[in-house]
Amino acid sequence: MSYATELTEAHKTFLKDALGEGVNFEPEVTQIYSSDASLRTGKVFAVIWPANTEQVRKVMAWADAECVVIHPRGRGTSLSGGCVPTVPGIVLSTLGMDRILDISITDFVAEVEPGVCTATFQSECEKLGVFYPPDPASGKATSIGGNVSTCAGGLKAVKYGVTRDYVLGCDVVLPGGGLLKLGGRTHKDVIGLDMTRFMAGSEGTLGILTRLILKLLPKPESSASVLAGYPSLDAALISMGKVFAAGILPTAVEFMNETVLDILRQTGEIPWPETVNSLLLFQVDGCKETLPLEVARLGRQLDDSLWQTQGVGAAEENKLWAYRRRISAGSYVLGPDRIGGDMAVPRGQLLAAVRRFEEIAHNNGKRLIAFGHAGDGNIHANLHYDASDPDDKRRTEKTHHELDDAVLEFGGSISGEHGGGCLKDVGRQLGEAEHAMMRQIRKVFDPKGILNPNKGY
Amino acid sequence: MSYATELTEAHKTFLKDALGEGVNFEPEVTQIYSSDASLRTGKVFAVIWPANTEQVRKVMAWADAECVVIHPRGRGTSLSGGCVPTVPGIVLSTLGMDRILDISITDFVAEVEPGVCTATFQSECEKLGVFYPPDPASGKATSIGGNVSTCAGGLKAVKYGVTRDYVLGCDVVLPGGGLLKLGGRTHKDVIGLDMTRFMAGSEGTLGILTRLILKLLPKPESSASVLAGYPSLDAALISMGKVFAAGILPTAVEFMNETVLDILRQTGEIPWPETVNSLLLFQVDGCKETLPLEVARLGRQLDDSLWQTQGVGAAEENKLWAYRRRISAGSYVLGPDRIGGDMAVPRGQLLAAVRRFEEIAHNNGKRLIAFGHAGDGNIHANLHYDASDPDDKRRTEKTHHELDDAVLEFGGSISGEHGGGCLKDVGRQLGEAEHAMMRQIRKVFDPKGILNPNKGY
Repeated sequence: MSYATELTEAHKTFLKDALGEGVNFEPEVTQIYSSDASLRTGKVFAVIWPANTEQVRKVMAWADAECVVIHPRGRGTSLSGGCVPTVPGIVLSTLGMDRILDISITDFVAEVEPGVCTATFQSECEKLGVFYPPDPASGKATSIGGNVSTCAGGLKAVKYGVTRDYVLGCDVVLPGGGLLKLGGRTHKDVIGLDMTRFMAGSEGTLGILTRLILKLLPKPESSASVLAGYPSLDAALISMGKVFAAGILPTAVEFMNETVLDILRQTGEIPWPETVNSLLLFQVDGCKETLPLEVARLGRQLDDSLWQTQGVGAAEENKLWAYRRRISAGSYVLGPDRIGGDMAVPRGQLLAAVRRFEEIAHNNGKRLIAFGHAGDGNIHANLHYDASDPDDKRRTEKTHHELDDAVLEFGGSISGEHGGGCLKDVGRQLGEAEHAMMRQIRKVFDPKGILNPNKGY
Repeated sequence: MSYATELTEAHKTFLKDALGEGVNFEPEVTQIYSSDASLRTGKVFAVIWPANTEQVRKVMAWADAECVVIHPRGRGTSLSGGCVPTVPGIVLSTLGMDRILDISITDFVAEVEPGVCTATFQSECEKLGVFYPPDPASGKATSIGGNVSTCAGGLKAVKYGVTRDYVLGCDVVLPGGGLLKLGGRTHKDVIGLDMTRFMAGSEGTLGILTRLILKLLPKPESSASVLAGYPSLDAALISMGKVFAAGILPTAVEFMNETVLDILRQTGEIPWPETVNSLLLFQVDGCKETLPLEVARLGRQLDDSLWQTQGVGAAEENKLWAYRRRISAGSYVLGPDRIGGDMAVPRGQLLAAVRRFEEIAHNNGKRLIAFGHAGDGNIHANLHYDASDPDDKRRTEKTHHELDDAVLEFGGSISGEHGGGCLKDVGRQLGEAEHAMMRQIRKVFDPKGILNPNKGY
């Protein structure tokens, strides 16, 4: 397929007519939209901010006819290059469509436009006494449309599942301008193929989401957290196993390996004794009356811990979660540049996988920063280095590559959260037949391949 | 597409060679497999019970080449004709593949063949201290493969979601014999399009499931149920609203309308006073220590009830759930034949929808039996009649048809649980563009249309 290699004057006129103020061709602006949190860059002809579904339909009809590539983009927080223009084209920002259309406390359903900020939406829900559980750690910076497109996971997935599990319906504009209205406001619906959930995690390759219908839950009265310290990650994960075996389903279970503890020790105050080399951080939620009992029960399962502290309610919990939030910034003590991983392994393989990853890093003269969502077997495996040191850079990239091999040996996925984007070598994980089938399905939605090429799969 | 209209001797020889004992051409046997719980019938050339994926691949390669139609079938409990051969062909029973391959209490993952009975699998999980939540009311009779193919819902969906939410991976044999190995044993995986979940609810139209990888949860220590009686369905559903508003997420919430209460009164002992005309039945689960407090809290929200009884633990709960289980058999006092509905409406519309359905039934001289999963807005709306009375039959069918119109007016789905099968007029719900897209995707999997034609969508 040969794509338009520049915008003609006629193209520009079309865009101005179709979008009014919602288009910009200035290099200062297109430059900003040429990258995302992955820091990779591509070439952008123009940025557009359609205000509604009809504008998106017009643009998608035109782009398909003119073979202009469209790169959809939410808040650009992708760490796997999901928003990077791999082919010169137009960035379609969903941030012009950022209204919360409805939060129904009787239907337990919300309707939102894709550009709504996740944290804003969550907080609007909570004001009304309802709860939108998907909670990507970067929720203050992300959009709901981006969350759906990547099937964002986050901290609470162990109890509440991922974004996919909360999408009841959506409006999707196809290349060519066609509109699909999928699903609806019922919590159950088994008529036809499940196209709604199929959009979740499709990384903007099938259509542009312009409206989302989301499932809500009753808001739990309260929550509590427990931070527990162990002599080693081995001891920590054995302890975690006891919690699940006792029939406890925590809202969140985070782990931190010995390197993370070193970093926290070097970069700020810590309340735990020197003997603590690994941490588990649990959250549970429920009603005010029973929560203290639940926390006490959880604490009893953690009897192998060297040190334990509990916090009930948001203010106290925040103090415990602050250590988790310090990891990312603190890690720069190990080097000014970072390559991150977000792999997932079967939950029971978590310890073996982290130990193997650490060994791979060590063999390359690197230290592995490992933390993440232990309850999902989801590991943030980060490597820091100095990009100005070619040998360090080479060893870091080699380590990163070898980690993905190891993930696959453990029966894992090279991405539990961030998606393939344009940076992950998904062909290493997907079989040929499966990969080919995905591409065939993509062609049904986008025969000319104008939408987000070279992304995802 | 012209399908094979009979099996030739060469066809029969192929099947005997490929399947050995796992094929039967006897009319006494094919007759049994010509129908399902919908009681509709079709023509069956042969029934096959492949023992493994390789046998399924051989058959599907052959069937595609010879244009022989294949009708996949689990335990045949479909109420929407999902297993009825709409075109003469071969019934492929998955019951020859009924092994539980693995239940891992460390990975919280199970691997099963599709023919495994749902209740058997659940009980094997519970013996090991893990929990498979999807709980179709007919679980003792159904297979996991059938549950996945229809995205079965059931009693516990309000808290735990539906079957789709527990499928992590699957092996799928395509028409032509290709094999897709989708997903895996990780609880999170966002690499590639979500083909795994797309199989859920696809009603056997995309491929034959030969292995399923399922997510498990920790097993809650205990559960408790509360049965509450109200003067009317109005009062009952207002009371339910208070429970959700208090931040309680019950495992299950069932409702029964006034007609159901009449039936229970006529067909057995009842413990509630005469003033009770509608019931709510709740279940909550959790740890033994806090459950009595949770039940008490739930009871306090139900302060509008005229009558209430509680049961803690399976034995006591069973006594309460026995009333729910009596509905189906008891309903025959209203007529020897039944047409059932399993529609879903937005949760807040439940009362208005049931009242509208009752009005439609009344206008046709019928009484509506309405009960079901109130927490999901999922209504079992049954009509009983006497098929030997042509006028009664006509009025019943007219009512049934008008109910689906009303469902769509409420923004609902004509099927929350059973699927389209071959009996539901899914075109009334699906838009043209959405319906066309589903059929195009189907063609990617099954270009000749040999798999379960005229089903689903």
